[in-house]
Amino acid sequence: MRKPLAFEEYHAYIEAELQASLGPGNLSLYSMLRYHLGWVDAQGRPSEHPGGKFLRSTLCLSSCKAVGGEPGRAVPAAVAVELTHNFSLIHDDIQDISEYRRHRPTVWKVWGVPQAINAGDSIYALAYLEVLRLLNRGVPEKRVLSAVQILGQACRLICEGQYLDISFESRHSVTVDEYMQMISGKTGALMEASTHLGALVGTVDDKLVECLAGFGRHLGTAFQIQDDILGIWGGVEETGKSQYDDILRRKKTLPVIFGLAHAEGIAGEELSALYRRTDMSLADAARVASILESSGARDHARRVVEQHRQLAIRELGSAPVSAGVAELMGILDFVLGQGILNEDGSRP
Amino acid sequence: MRKPLAFEEYHAYIEAELQASLGPGNLSLYSMLRYHLGWVDAQGRPSEHPGGKFLRSTLCLSSCKAVGGEPGRAVPAAVAVELTHNFSLIHDDIQDISEYRRHRPTVWKVWGVPQAINAGDSIYALAYLEVLRLLNRGVPEKRVLSAVQILGQACRLICEGQYLDISFESRHSVTVDEYMQMISGKTGALMEASTHLGALVGTVDDKLVECLAGFGRHLGTAFQIQDDILGIWGGVEETGKSQYDDILRRKKTLPVIFGLAHAEGIAGEELSALYRRTDMSLADAARVASILESSGARDHARRVVEQHRQLAIRELGSAPVSAGVAELMGILDFVLGQGILNEDGSRP
Repeated sequence: MRKPLAFEEYHAYIEAELQASLGPGNLSLYSMLRYHLGWVDAQGRPSEHPGGKFLRSTLCLSSCKAVGGEPGRAVPAAVAVELTHNFSLIHDDIQDISEYRRHRPTVWKVWGVPQAINAGDSIYALAYLEVLRLLNRGVPEKRVLSAVQILGQACRLICEGQYLDISFESRHSVTVDEYMQMISGKTGALMEASTHLGALVGTVDDKLVECLAGFGRHLGTAFQIQDDILGIWGGVEETGKSQYDDILRRKKTLPVIFGLAHAEGIAGEELSALYRRTDMSLADAARVASILESSGARDHARRVVEQHRQLAIRELGSAPVSAGVAELMGILDFVLGQGILNEDGSRP
Repeated sequence: MRKPLAFEEYHAYIEAELQASLGPGNLSLYSMLRYHLGWVDAQGRPSEHPGGKFLRSTLCLSSCKAVGGEPGRAVPAAVAVELTHNFSLIHDDIQDISEYRRHRPTVWKVWGVPQAINAGDSIYALAYLEVLRLLNRGVPEKRVLSAVQILGQACRLICEGQYLDISFESRHSVTVDEYMQMISGKTGALMEASTHLGALVGTVDDKLVECLAGFGRHLGTAFQIQDDILGIWGGVEETGKSQYDDILRRKKTLPVIFGLAHAEGIAGEELSALYRRTDMSLADAARVASILESSGARDHARRVVEQHRQLAIRELGSAPVSAGVAELMGILDFVLGQGILNEDGSRP
């Protein structure tokens, strides 16, 4: 599936504002941020490395357009969510001990954990400073305050989701409700904030703003479960991760939770025993994937993705038919169709 | 020296709002925050452990009073700086591999680094949500937006200062200018934000607000250099740290930078050689302290503290004589006099 034009259309605006948000930043602290964003190499020399597709920021601008707004006014909000996303990636990589992102060593791997914590904390601060720049685009003060609130609330939920995700790794039993709470924070909150903020800038119709927020929320949920499916059955090229990475880390993703609850008889006991092992081999992981498949876990997860895809589309139904709505539909199809991938094949 | 009454007067208001800022927070993530703040033990059972003296939040409320404002209105700003301070402490402890704070194991020591990163990130988000609560106290929207800007800018500078502080550890040569840049971020920025925010809420006289910000900035600088002096010549009881901790970590504090530049002859060479060693013994550290003393480093640092103390007092001169100004003077004397200490003898 071809990448929707919205990504191309907004890319330059987002990147220019993203660069502006870092300011002159002559401290070498900012080299870490520029490296992470793909603009320089580890020695600070200019390089062009894919820095992500700007999914969240594009969603923000398309949402502004979809409610009849001028996307240019929402650029600071779009960049604020992009910065927030990158803060969470830098810290995630430390927490997950991930050594590579987008086929380059992660920030902590190059500069060490203490400085990588700083790099994430800095981008976090820049996100709040950036959202205030909505004032320069003529967004009324009251709306900018709401934007800060939306961003802060999303950050709070991201941390809660990340907390649950890590704590699940050392627990054997996780319920579907707990899982949904986790992903609605870890992934859903920022997707929702992206569409919410774009709509907030674009219209004074609060009911419509709520619908766009709902679109982002359901898209985020579908996106995460789709990612969970790829994390087990996707190829290495498709995910950019090592094969069975999620299983080997004993991640409690939706297919796993479903499988642990539904795999019956000897297969069920085997799955449960394998998932208790702290030293799973690659062969064990392949066996886990196979039992999950037989238990119907993959089909179940696909059905849940489809449910949330439908719910997202229904939310969009409240917006008048427009080019912006078509953009959002295109992004949804692209993200949930083949799975959105970075240039290097990894997930954004 | 007796603790100024302002600390007692505001303590309950600050703590109540701090508790409210965490909300119901029934996720165990919030137990980590409550533990760090001294309200529960590592098992989540209520405990009363000193959680800091609320120096920054008290400065904020006294600053509001000093410009003729009602301190009660500034409480959300005070709590926002307190939350920001605690976010930075939790991350600092990871970065410095500090195992104890206020005589209890640090958050990362109890819950591990990944969850401690989350704990810090959460408090960071709460700080921004908290500052927005100024709206509930009738602070005009424009002022609340300025408050978010001040907080974001302070967070950015804190990260820059922390970045420099860590990078200095692996460098042999640091200039006084670089050192001043580092502490103006690491310590000065949040002290300045504290007095700045309090004044911003308390008056519409922007010139006066600037003076109060300047008071906080100079107080922060003096406070940090005073802390540097204690870090070398203070007793264990006085600092709550191990003896010569700063020297053993090869921290480039002002006395050290001065000593490396001014210690002459054989003593100078010995100092330089000792500070290049990665395996300094306690005896080496004692020798470093002794050479620094002889080089005049301690006297020099004391003079710089005095300069900034005078500059801080001069900034206060613009405010009309009032009970609030007297409070700030009392805090300044207390902080720079005997050194402000926590109940357990450690530095706040």
